[in-house]
Order: sequence, then structure tokens, then C-alpha cells
Amino acid sequence: MDISTVLGLLLGVVFIIGGILTSGQIDSYVHIPSIIIVLGGTIASTLASFPLKNFLNTSKVIKKAFVYKEILPDEVIGEIINLANIARKEGLLALEEYAEELQDDFLQKGIMLIVDGTDPELVRNILETELIFLEERHMDGQSIFETMGTYAPAFGMIGTLIGLINMLKHLDDPSMIGPNMSVALVTTFYGSILANVVFLPLARKLKIRSKSEVLVKELIVEGLLSIQAGENPRIIEEKLKTFIPPELRKNYREHLEREGV
Amino acid sequence: MDISTVLGLLLGVVFIIGGILTSGQIDSYVHIPSIIIVLGGTIASTLASFPLKNFLNTSKVIKKAFVYKEILPDEVIGEIINLANIARKEGLLALEEYAEELQDDFLQKGIMLIVDGTDPELVRNILETELIFLEERHMDGQSIFETMGTYAPAFGMIGTLIGLINMLKHLDDPSMIGPNMSVALVTTFYGSILANVVFLPLARKLKIRSKSEVLVKELIVEGLLSIQAGENPRIIEEKLKTFIPPELRKNYREHLEREGV
Amino acid sequence: MDISTVLGLLLGVVFIIGGILTSGQIDSYVHIPSIIIVLGGTIASTLASFPLKNFLNTSKVIKKAFVYKEILPDEVIGEIINLANIARKEGLLALEEYAEELQDDFLQKGIMLIVDGTDPELVRNILETELIFLEERHMDGQSIFETMGTYAPAFGMIGTLIGLINMLKHLDDPSMIGPNMSVALVTTFYGSILANVVFLPLARKLKIRSKSEVLVKELIVEGLLSIQAGENPRIIEEKLKTFIPPELRKNYREHLEREGV
Amino acid sequence: MDISTVLGLLLGVVFIIGGILTSGQIDSYVHIPSIIIVLGGTIASTLASFPLKNFLNTSKVIKKAFVYKEILPDEVIGEIINLANIARKEGLLALEEYAEELQDDFLQKGIMLIVDGTDPELVRNILETELIFLEERHMDGQSIFETMGTYAPAFGMIGTLIGLINMLKHLDDPSMIGPNMSVALVTTFYGSILANVVFLPLARKLKIRSKSEVLVKELIVEGLLSIQAGENPRIIEEKLKTFIPPELRKNYREHLEREGV
Amino acid sequence: MDISTVLGLLLGVVFIIGGILTSGQIDSYVHIPSIIIVLGGTIASTLASFPLKNFLNTSKVIKKAFVYKEILPDEVIGEIINLANIARKEGLLALEEYAEELQDDFLQKGIMLIVDGTDPELVRNILETELIFLEERHMDGQSIFETMGTYAPAFGMIGTLIGLINMLKHLDDPSMIGPNMSVALVTTFYGSILANVVFLPLARKLKIRSKSEVLVKELIVEGLLSIQAGENPRIIEEKLKTFIPPELRKNYREHLEREGV
Repeated sequence: MDISTVLGLLLGVVFIIGGILTSGQIDSYVHIPSIIIVLGGTIASTLASFPLKNFLNTSKVIKKAFVYKEILPDEVIGEIINLANIARKEGLLALEEYAEELQDDFLQKGIMLIVDGTDPELVRNILETELIFLEERHMDGQSIFETMGTYAPAFGMIGTLIGLINMLKHLDDPSMIGPNMSVALVTTFYGSILANVVFLPLARKLKIRSKSEVLVKELIVEGLLSIQAGENPRIIEEKLKTFIPPELRKNYREHLEREGV
Repeated sequence: MDISTVLGLLLGVVFIIGGILTSGQIDSYVHIPSIIIVLGGTIASTLASFPLKNFLNTSKVIKKAFVYKEILPDEVIGEIINLANIARKEGLLALEEYAEELQDDFLQKGIMLIVDGTDPELVRNILETELIFLEERHMDGQSIFETMGTYAPAFGMIGTLIGLINMLKHLDDPSMIGPNMSVALVTTFYGSILANVVFLPLARKLKIRSKSEVLVKELIVEGLLSIQAGENPRIIEEKLKTFIPPELRKNYREHLEREGV
Repeated sequence: MDISTVLGLLLGVVFIIGGILTSGQIDSYVHIPSIIIVLGGTIASTLASFPLKNFLNTSKVIKKAFVYKEILPDEVIGEIINLANIARKEGLLALEEYAEELQDDFLQKGIMLIVDGTDPELVRNILETELIFLEERHMDGQSIFETMGTYAPAFGMIGTLIGLINMLKHLDDPSMIGPNMSVALVTTFYGSILANVVFLPLARKLKIRSKSEVLVKELIVEGLLSIQAGENPRIIEEKLKTFIPPELRKNYREHLEREGV
Repeated sequence: MDISTVLGLLLGVVFIIGGILTSGQIDSYVHIPSIIIVLGGTIASTLASFPLKNFLNTSKVIKKAFVYKEILPDEVIGEIINLANIARKEGLLALEEYAEELQDDFLQKGIMLIVDGTDPELVRNILETELIFLEERHMDGQSIFETMGTYAPAFGMIGTLIGLINMLKHLDDPSMIGPNMSVALVTTFYGSILANVVFLPLARKLKIRSKSEVLVKELIVEGLLSIQAGENPRIIEEKLKTFIPPELRKNYREHLEREGV
Repeated sequence: MDISTVLGLLLGVVFIIGGILTSGQIDSYVHIPSIIIVLGGTIASTLASFPLKNFLNTSKVIKKAFVYKEILPDEVIGEIINLANIARKEGLLALEEYAEELQDDFLQKGIMLIVDGTDPELVRNILETELIFLEERHMDGQSIFETMGTYAPAFGMIGTLIGLINMLKHLDDPSMIGPNMSVALVTTFYGSILANVVFLPLARKLKIRSKSEVLVKELIVEGLLSIQAGENPRIIEEKLKTFIPPELRKNYREHLEREGV
């Protein structure tokens, strides 16, 4: 569960409703047809912008912004050093048994490649291609939300233009000018909220999640290649430590010890 | 047929017309001279921005956003592994016969280069140059729509300015101020719709289509070079699998079996 | 003569004048002092932004967007294959005679370098540096128009602010508010038109022209180096064909035949 | 203490309050609910955009923009030349003692790697990876402020829309239109100030600080590798001098002399 | 003296004052408190955005946009060919004497490195690092003006918001609405002018100056390395000519002759 996404969205809604309540009543701001124009238009243009497959994928991508089990880089370093120690003492083949228990598919796949005696150049090639396309797929997900974040204000403005054009055609009853314009502005209001409270924050969150997931996988690639090259576990440790911020550099030591190495 | 493009455009129009009908009558929003200024101006500036050849090409490019036969990467992987198996068992020359039946020009051209015994470096050079210029030509198509997506709102604003300037010159009859301003705003309305419902979604769709087409071709280049190098089909499989998302990695196996390998 | 530039500019003006005539009279939109502020201000700031030399060069650059003799890549391929055939049959020195008749300075220079027996690495180095700086000079030209395209709307707004500030200071005569505001808006109108009908389309046209000119020159570099390396004309053909779109690939064959090879 | 940050923020506030006082009273511009909408909304969307960890880190990052002990590149050059002289005269091992007194962790770590006899390629690899991830972490900090700088004006506009929609619904009392609109505009005012006086300047300051910190560390990497390679201190001096502006190139000489070398 | 900067700024001011005089009196547009808010706020936020050192450097940077002695690339090519001829005839050491008379520090430094018999790889390394950091320092200067160009309109809008909020609070005297709003708009007017007439043109001018200064220095690096490698002056000439536009390629010949070589 990603607390900051949930909390951020909730707080955003709370502050806006709070702002509304201090200046008026909530029902001036709820206008179903306006919601339909803005949200519907945004979804329609997003649908036209992406292949159906990517579009339908959105629900999965949203889930990722809310439910996210972070893989801690310091734990991964600990795990890789364990692997390096095993490989040193019992040989590369001993890693196979260990790999079966691992939850991380990428790490597991990498170990199997090493155990199979694959050429180091090919191991790097396969794992890095995997990483590049993982990043690309992540970017596909982000870009849907970024795109929605640009369409939402645009449809907000289109809705307001619809309201204004209609209002200006019928200025007979001056007492209706204000309320009509008020309704016209509601779509711009919705468009801004959808973009700035929902779509853009989700796009940014996914981007950062992707970056940290890729970082962990780069760590794994570097570590596995060092293990395959038979490097000293202490050197591997030294190398991998540079991937993480100084304040985390003590943590993985504890993981190591907890796992009794 | 690209369902999402058609559906997205249709839904966009439906939501906007729906929005219009809930607040007024459709005829306030239909103003032929305004359509002519916005669409005509956009087309004129686009014409000035691109060589005539590219501009006339637009119709072909539009077709691509609507009618699109996706080449599935998993099918292509299956096909390449078949080729690798044939090359292994019967030699590279046996691929010629197989190639003649292929529909993909790029794959066919690549196989012919291999069969002709072209130097591997030259094969990569030729196929990659082909890819680079394919991408460039795709980008030419996208950029026409992106450009139209920036001109349309600009001409919307120019049209509104024309209306406003005229209206402000003749304020004699106050009862006409509203309707005149209403007409003035219609061009901005058209500009926003053209950009956000038509041009920008089409530009984005073409961009993504191009990316997935290039991906498949990169797959083919990688596969053909591995076949030429006489690599083991299992290794080729392992390499190419990394190009596609994990959920597709089982599919190509089925293709393989269906083709009886 | 670049028909699309001329046609695009003409059509843009026609559509705008058409739009004006359907809603009012042309004389409300002609205001000499406004033209002076917007065009003068744009030119002044552009002058301050660029060295005098680049600025004075603008007229030459404009000419390029209107009068442009496209060098067709398929013709160039044909020419290079001719050269390759001559070099094959009669030796590299035989190219000198042929080169003297060529109109393309770049191709001529390249051939002379080869005929002089210059080291291939140096030939590539010289021709590619030439290309890089050609692109840079092209970009200088484009960026003047892009810059004008950002200053024009800014001075449009400055002009409108001047008009508004003055109008607001003198609200004594209500009957003048409308006409005064109308005049104020005219500068914004001019700024938008200059940017979207003139400067930005010209900048884009120059960019695309540059790209296709550079493409042809890259073709020449690749071709000349292959000739110098003594490659088979058929291989050179295969290589260079990848630079051009499939639909043009038959054309150069015709050029070849016409030239009797 | 970073004087320019403190002074800049103070002056910004002073000029704005000054501007307010020349045209009206300060209390028209203080409206607690508006502050809550703009600041609260900005914080909420920023929270949703970043992982909780990064968000909580902001206070540390802010501190960095205010309190900053600049490490002068000319001092570092002096220090490295001292190290080079020691290494020359007494051998690489003699650096260990010297390193223990150093305050710069990065320089210290680098020296220890050299003293341990680590392979030069690995030393470069470790130190450069360290640098890359340091830069990434800096960028995480900057991007929080940049993001806040885009959300603040957006929530300013959302607040103004809330105010306008409410005001337009209740136009019964014309005497309240002005004051209500005044209140509505206050949120836009807050949003602009937060972005342009606080968030964007802080983001830019952090960016520049990061650049100069990374520059010093690049200097150290270059210097340490030269020391390890046993290069002549004079050559090292010549190399490192190019990293700093000419006017600083005499300063480090003084540092050298002060330290008695 | 850079005529185009001076002329551009002067003309910009002239056109704006001209525009003001055709529509009203100059004193409606002069409002000291507004100047203080816009200029003061811009300076304050710029101060907060940059280290004090960079900020104080601005005056030097401004000077560079006005007073600029262009080093002509064709003259430099002539000079390098002279050097190459001397080196050929009298040996590399003979360059020392010649170097002492040179005004260009960079060229002088490069020659001294060659005369000292420095390793070519190190010469390139030192001169290119010098170039990279020169470019970085140039960019620091430009980015101050670019930043001011974004803050100025923002503070223009903040000033206008201050004026509007105050005006709307006090609508008692309708005759003051116009003049008050007029004053409010003056800050937006100042912000636009500062950005589009002063800051952005200066930023662009500095950028282009930097590019041409770096070009000349790249020329020098290429030339010196060729001299050190003992290349034929004719080949060096051929290489360096590609750095400059065709119309300048005859000029340097004249320089050569004038210098009697």
C-alpha cells in the first residue's frame, strides 16, 4: 500500500471541499453533465491516442500507484553478497538451489543464466535488454496519465466555451447570466482538479516508482555479472554500495547478519 | 481497423454534442464561416510549413491511424525461431524458399541478404539504416498532425479576435453584443476541439504505432543476425523473449507449436 | 519555386480576410501604428538577439523558403552508382573529368578528395565536419524565424496593454470604450497572424528543407566512401537504397537507364 | 549560510508588501482559507506525486538551500597537488595517514581505495557510480520543488475558480461582487508568489549547488586517478586547472603555499 | 561594441514609446511603484535562484552582450596555417617565440603545451576540458538572463493581481475603476517589456556569442593537434576550412598573404 498516494489524493480532495465550504455550498460545484463532458472527453481522446491494449491496461497501472511493495536496494545488496559468498565457497552451481526460493523473477532468471554457463556478454545483453523494455513498458503507463493530464484541462475549457457560447446567445434574462456563467466555469474547475489532483500526481508517482525499480534491477545486473566473473564478495560489496545513499549503507549489513552470513 | 481510434473520435464527438444539448441548442455551435477560418487557416499554415509532398501524404498517414494490421511481436519471434531451426537443420540456403512465402517485406529482405552470403556487418548496417529512415518517415507523418494541433487553437484565437474587434467597433445595438461575442467564441471552440479531439490524438496514436512497428523490426534484425551467426535456436529464443512483456512470452510458444515445430 | 510555401501563405491571408469580410469591414482591422508596434518591436528584439551578420542574412534565408531547387535523393543515388561504375572500370582517377561537370559542390569536393588520394579517414572527417557546420548554419537561419515567432505575439500583447492602459485612464466617453478596445486588440491580432501565418511556418519549412538537404549529403558521404573503398556498385546500391522511402526505390533505376548505364 | 537565498526571499517579500502598501491595505491580501487551499493543495498533490520517503526528505533539502558550506574547487586542487607531492616522495601508502584528517568523505574514500591497491579501472568505476547516484539524489530533491512550483499556480487557479463559481451563483447583492471577486483572486496571487518567490528559486538554487558539488567531485576523481597513475604533480596541476575559471587559477597556488608545499 | 544589441534595445524602446504616443500620453505608463515591484521582485527571485557570486557576475556578463570583439574564424585559420608553416620549416620549438606575441590566451596556452612536448592525448584532454568548462561558465551567464526573463512577466502578473484585488475591494467610486485598473495593468506591461525587450534578447545574444567563441576554440584545438602531429599545412587548411561557411573560405587566404606567407 502506497500511503503517500492515498493520503495525497485524500488531502487534495479535503482541501478543495474545505475551500468550497468556506466560500459557499457544495451543490454549486456538483454538475453531472459537466463531469460527463470533462471526464468523458478526456477518456475519449485518450482512447483515440493509445492502442486499445494500452488503454485497457490503465487499471493495472493505476493499481501500481496505490499498491506497491517496494524492493529495498539495501536488502537486494545483502542478498547478492550472500549469493557471492555461496558462489565463492560452493561454486556457481550451488546457486541454483538458492535461486528457487527467490521471489524476484529477474534475479532468479539472472542466476539461472549464470548457472547454465551462459556467456557473460550474453547474460549482460539479455538482462539489459530486459531492463530497457521494462522501462519502455513503464513509460507507456506513465504517458497515459500524462496525456490525460493535458486533455482534462482542455476539455474543461471546451466545456466552459460551450456554456459561454450558449449563455451569450441568450442574454434576455439578466438574472440568469451569473448562474449560467457559474455553470460554465464548473467544467474548467473539474479539468484543473482532474489534472492537478489526480492525473499528473499519478504520472509522477509512476515515473519515480519506475526509476527505483530499474535502479534495483541495475544493481542486480551489476552484482550477477560480478559473481559470474568470480569477483571477491568484498569488492562486489564496495561496488554495489555506491548505488545507494550513504544513510542506507549500514542497513544492508544488518540484513547480512540477520541472514547469518 | 483500429477500434480505439474510431471509438475515441466518436465518443469525443458524442460527449461534446451531449454537453451542448444539455445546455442549449446545437445550432448556436454551428457556424460555417468559423469552421472555414479555423480549418482553412490550419491547413494553410500547415501547407506553408511542409513540402507539398509531405502535405499530400497526409491522407495516407491518416489511413494508418485508422486501419492498422498490428504485427504481433510474439508471432514474429515464433517465425524467427522457425527460421533458426530450418537454418540449423538444412542450412542458410534453405531459408530462401521459406522467405518467398513471407508477407513482411523487411523480414524477407533480411533473409535474402543472409542467403546471398552478405557480410554480417553489412547486413546489420543495411537493416539498421532502413530502420532509422523508416522511423524518420514516421516522424514526418506525426509532426504534420502535431503541427496542426498547434495551429488549430491559434487560428481559433485569431477568429475570436476578428469577431471581438468587429463587435467592439459596433456597440450601437447592445442587444447584439451577446450573440456577436457568442459567434466570436465559436472559433476558439472549434480550434480546441480540432486540436484535442482530432489532431493531437492522431499524432499520439501514430507515434505509438511507429514505436511498436520499429520494435518488431528491431526484433527481426536481432534475430536474423543471430541466425546468420549460427546461434542455437534456444539462445535466440532467450534473447528475443526479452523484447516482449512477460505476459506475452508464452504466446509465441503456441505459435511455434501450431506451426508444427 | 516552393509552391507549398507560397500557396500556404496566400491561403492563410485569404482565409483571414474572408473571415473578416463575413463579420465586418476590412478597415477595422487595418491600423498602421499597430502594425508598426508589433512588426517594429519584433524586429528590434530579434536584432538585439542575434549578431548583425546573422540578422542581415535573414533575407537570404527567406529566399530559401520560397525558391528551392530540391535535389532528389533518388537522382543522387543514380549519380553515385554511375560514379561507382566508372571508378570500377576506369579507376578512381577517371572520376576527375566527370566531377568537373557536376553542379553539386559538395559531391564535387568529395570526388576531388578521393581523386587526390586523401586518406579515407580524413575524407570522412572533412566531409562530416562540413555537414555538421552546414546543419549549424541552417539552424541559425531557422532560429531567427522561431525567435520572431515568439516575439510577435509578445509585442502583440504589449501593444494591447498600451491600448488598454490608455483606454482605462480615459473612460469619460463611454461611446469610445468599444472602439478603443477594438484598436487595442488589433495588435494581438497582428501578433498572432505574424507568428502563425508567417514566422512559425517559415521556421518549420526551413527545418524540413535542412533535414532533406542533409540527408542527401549523408548519402553522398556514404556513397563516396564506398567508392573509395572499391566496393561493388551493387552493394553500394543496396546500401544507399535504404536511405530513401520504398516508393522512390524504383525511380533511381530509371535515372540510371536514362543516363545509359 | 547561503546569503543570497535568505536575501532573495526577504527582498521578494519586502517588494511585494511594499507594492501592496502603495496601493492599499495589507489586510485585503491576507485570507487564511485561501492560504490553506493553495498551500494545502500543493502539498497534497506533491505528496501524491512522490514516495513518502522523498517527501519527508524535503526539510533536509530545504536546509541545503539555506545553509551551505561551499567547497572551493581551488582549495581542492591545492589539496590534491599536496597529495600528489606526498605520493611522489613517500609512496602511495603515505597517503593513508593524511587521508584520516580529511573532512571530505568522498576524497577520503577515494584515497583509501588507492591505498588499498584497488585496480584503477575499479576505482574510477566506484567513484563515478557514486557521483552518478549523488546527482540523481540531488535531482530528486530539486524535482520536489519544481513540482511544487507547477502545482502552486494550479491550485491558485482552482481556488479562484471556486470563488468565482460561488460569486456568480449569488449576484443578488451587487455591492458584494467586487469584494467577492477580490477574495477569489487572492488564491491566484498566493499561487504565483509561492511559485515565483519560493519554490522555483529554491529549485534553481539546489540545481546550481548540485552542479558545483559534482564539479568538485569530478575534480577529485580526475586528480586521484592521476595520483594513482603516478603522474607528475605539475601535469596534474595543469589538468585540474582547466576545471576552474581563469580568475581562480591563482588562488589555489596561495593555498599550496599556505600549507607550506 | 556590439551594434545590433544597442540598436535592437534602442529601437525596441523607440517603437514602444512611439506606440504609446500615438494612443495617449507617456505619463499614464510611468508608475514608479510598479517599476519597483516588477524589477525588484525579478531581482530578488533571481538572487534567491543563484549563488551570490554568479549574481554579482551579471554586470560583467551584460558587458559582454554590448562590448564584444569578435574573433574571426577565418583570421584564426590564417594564423594556424602560419604556425603550421613555421613548425614545418623551423620545428615545433620555433613556435614559442611566435606564441609570445599572440593575444589569444587559449591559442598561446595550446602552443606552450606543444612546445613543452606534452603528450598529444594530454594536450587534447587539457584543451577540451578547458572548452567544456568555458561553455559551462557561459551557460551560467545566459541562464541568469533566461531566469530573469521568466520572473519578470510573473512579477508583472503579481503586481497586476495586487492592483486588481485592491481595486475590487473598493468599488465605491465608479469613476476610479478605470484609472485603478489602468495602474494595475502597468506592471504586466513592464514585465512583458523587461522580458521581451531586455532579458530574453540578451540571453539569446549571449548564447550565440558563446557558440561562436567555442567554435573558434574548437578550430584552434583541431589545428594545434594537427600541427603537433606534423600534418601538412595544406591538409590542415583543408580540414579547418570545413569549420567556416563557404563565403568566408576565401577571406583567410587574404590574411595569409597580408602576413606575407
